[in-house]
Order: sequence, then C-alpha cells, then structure tokens
Amino acid sequence: MKHKSFSHMNCSLAQTLEIVGERWTLLILRDAFFGSKRFGQFERSLGIAKNILTARLAVLTEEGILDKRDSGDGAHAIYVLTEKGLDLQPILISMTHWGDKYKANPTGDRLVFVDREQGEPIRRMSVIAQDGRTLAPREIKVVPGPGLTDS
Amino acid sequence: MKHKSFSHMNCSLAQTLEIVGERWTLLILRDAFFGSKRFGQFERSLGIAKNILTARLAVLTEEGILDKRDSGDGAHAIYVLTEKGLDLQPILISMTHWGDKYKANPTGDRLVFVDREQGEPIRRMSVIAQDGRTLAPREIKVVPGPGLTDS
Repeated sequence: MKHKSFSHMNCSLAQTLEIVGERWTLLILRDAFFGSKRFGQFERSLGIAKNILTARLAVLTEEGILDKRDSGDGAHAIYVLTEKGLDLQPILISMTHWGDKYKANPTGDRLVFVDREQGEPIRRMSVIAQDGRTLAPREIKVVPGPGLTDS
Repeated sequence: MKHKSFSHMNCSLAQTLEIVGERWTLLILRDAFFGSKRFGQFERSLGIAKNILTARLAVLTEEGILDKRDSGDGAHAIYVLTEKGLDLQPILISMTHWGDKYKANPTGDRLVFVDREQGEPIRRMSVIAQDGRTLAPREIKVVPGPGLTDS
C-alpha cells in the first residue's frame, strides 16, 4: 500500500513521522537500544516478516539512524545506532512512560530506566522550563519560528 | 490492509504504538494540541481522507484520548483532548525537537515552545536524572520491573 508522504509538510513532527512513523520502525529501534544488531535478532525478537524488516532497516540505514557494518565474522552485517539514532531516545522513553501509565501491566512497570551513576530511576519524561520547572501543556505556548513561513 | 497487532506484547512502547502508531494519528493529535476540534478542521488542515479521519478519531475517542462532545450549536461534534491525551505531549514535542535537529528548515525552527510564565523557550526534550542531570543513552541502564515477567 502506497502511503501519502508527509515529507512536503513544513512541520518537524511530520518530518520525523515520515521516517520513524512506519509500523515496526520504533520497535526495531527499541531492540537496537537493547542491543540487537543482526537481522536475525530483530526478526526473532519481533516476529516481523523478512521483507518488512529488510525495508525498514534499509530506510533506517539510508537515513543515517543505523550504521550498517561488516560484522567481522564474514557472514552477516550488523546495524549499529548512530548519534542521530541515539537522539531518538527521548521519543522512545516518552512512549514507554505513557504506556506504563495508561496501558500498565497490573503487576507494575515492565522496565525501569536507571541512571547508572546514581542508581536511581530517571524522572518521568516531561516538558521542562529553562529554570527546571516541569511544565504542563497549558503552561506552554507555541510561537512561530523563522522556519515556519518558508516552505 | 489488516495490520498485525502489537497489543499482545508485554511492552509499554508497543502498547503505546498500538494506539498512536497509526499513520496520521500523531498529526491529528498535533492539530488537537494546536486547537483543532471539529472534523472539518482536521480534514482541511491535514488533507486527510474522510474515511481515515473518521476511523482515527473513533479510536482516539474509544481510547479516551479525545472526548467527543456536542458542540452546542446543534451541528457538529467537537473532539477535546483529555488528560490522557494531554499526557502525550512529551512524545509529540520529542518528535518535533528531533525533526528540528535532523530535518531542519534551513531558515530556522518552525515552531518554538515557550514557557508562558518566564517567556523563555522550553529545554530540549531529554532524559533527566532525579538530581536534574541530563542523561545520554549510555548513562542509562534498563532493569526489569515487576511487570516484565507477568504477561
């Protein structure tokens, strides 16, 4: 099925969705954050069809989110998160926290993200003011930036 | 096209994607955050097909992310973000910031989110430790929570 592209939209959210908004893509990236590197690891973990996984990995590689490298054992390529890929982490953790709250497992959180240095769980993802206050949606306004009118 | 459901996965990210991971859904929610309330507003803003918009609004209403209300003018319903919907904001802003950085408009940011009280732009979305430090991906570890084994 050919989707309508969002790439013409002068909107940073739409631009991001054009790349990571395909079904499976964020789950592939989740696995990459958890250490999956090989095609077969993603395939087994996700139960994803080979042709879809191939297509998604190709987009992520073209976009510079995953770096496709020789594994060194002569057999299979490995896919490693780049800086651009690592920068997707706030999106993935924001989604995880929302799911923890609204689609909770009754037994408790499934995964806990812990600050290695202090050994404490990270704060819940939220919007933060320059002075460190947590901001609710109503405490924020949106103003047009220089890039808004130039499409 | 019938998609494979993620709803059986004991993963908060997958659970979230099951709801907001459909194409268009996060753009509909973006418009709701910007004040769109009526079917026609979403339709015109997004250029989305009526049948797709109808289906997406139905899911968001069923899930309690949008509240479908009588508009009071006897004509059309309005869709208003609930608390559960407002809590999606960190996801949307994380995606917007990533797009600002990696799919930038050369003229500058398209939109700037400003703290109403101080008049300053919000901080870039990032993972924050309990003591306020910004944490890079390598500074975080993931530990299993009580909900992980119970599926």
